[in-house]
Amino acid sequence: MKEVLGLIRELAVFEKEPDAVEVDIQQLEADGFGPQPKFHCFVAARGSQILGMALVYPRYSTWKGPALHLEDLIVTEEARGIGLGTALLTEVIRYAKSTGAKRVGWEVLDWNQPAIDFYKSRGARILRDWDVVQLDQEGIDRYLEDYARI
Amino acid sequence: MKEVLGLIRELAVFEKEPDAVEVDIQQLEADGFGPQPKFHCFVAARGSQILGMALVYPRYSTWKGPALHLEDLIVTEEARGIGLGTALLTEVIRYAKSTGAKRVGWEVLDWNQPAIDFYKSRGARILRDWDVVQLDQEGIDRYLEDYARI
Repeated sequence: MKEVLGLIRELAVFEKEPDAVEVDIQQLEADGFGPQPKFHCFVAARGSQILGMALVYPRYSTWKGPALHLEDLIVTEEARGIGLGTALLTEVIRYAKSTGAKRVGWEVLDWNQPAIDFYKSRGARILRDWDVVQLDQEGIDRYLEDYARI
Repeated sequence: MKEVLGLIRELAVFEKEPDAVEVDIQQLEADGFGPQPKFHCFVAARGSQILGMALVYPRYSTWKGPALHLEDLIVTEEARGIGLGTALLTEVIRYAKSTGAKRVGWEVLDWNQPAIDFYKSRGARILRDWDVVQLDQEGIDRYLEDYARI
């Protein structure tokens, strides 16, 4: 998880939010490797060096049933272009099939054209008319203070 | 789950995809009420009649940690405007807080302005630069046939 966290931070820099990463190694280890793991993580390694990772967990579609979500697919910059991203995605799709998932979903930044082209070439649909909505920790507390005092 | 499925179908019509719903009552019951439930469902009821529902499950943010996802928030058309949507959302936020979620997330159609305005007024952020990507069941099978023959 130490190297996985390094990849997570590398992606945050690419996505222009370098300070957004709040998880640490201990939390990743506790959340991913306890009795009820909150995620499943595939890694691409050369020897003992981790060069890429794909982190997934189940979701549920009220239209289709069980689904798999790909939260992050990251290959470190120096190891791009040798097929690790494709290999990781293939493992994810294979894992989804083995768990009976009816759909694999993920999110992409709309300016990340190389990623969009890659996903489309692999048969994925880009749903441009859906927006992601988030209420962060501060928002949760403020909401409960404003609307849930009972 | 019979009435919940009715609400799911009502939403699919509103979202212009009336034929997209493939789950049935048996699957919802098995998936939501087994030893490891795949979702948690809140309902708004008048007497024994279910008028609205909110369906959630955990997600995992590699930046923040455990999160809660609100898959659907539905109030039947005839029961709109009396605060059931707000009541359901408040229950969801309260539940998120109780489970230690660092974030509550959901998705909204970008033409559903009343919903967007409501969510914003409650402190949520709309992330317009992220697109949803989906590989459906047929896409999963085609992908595995094309790229994962070993």
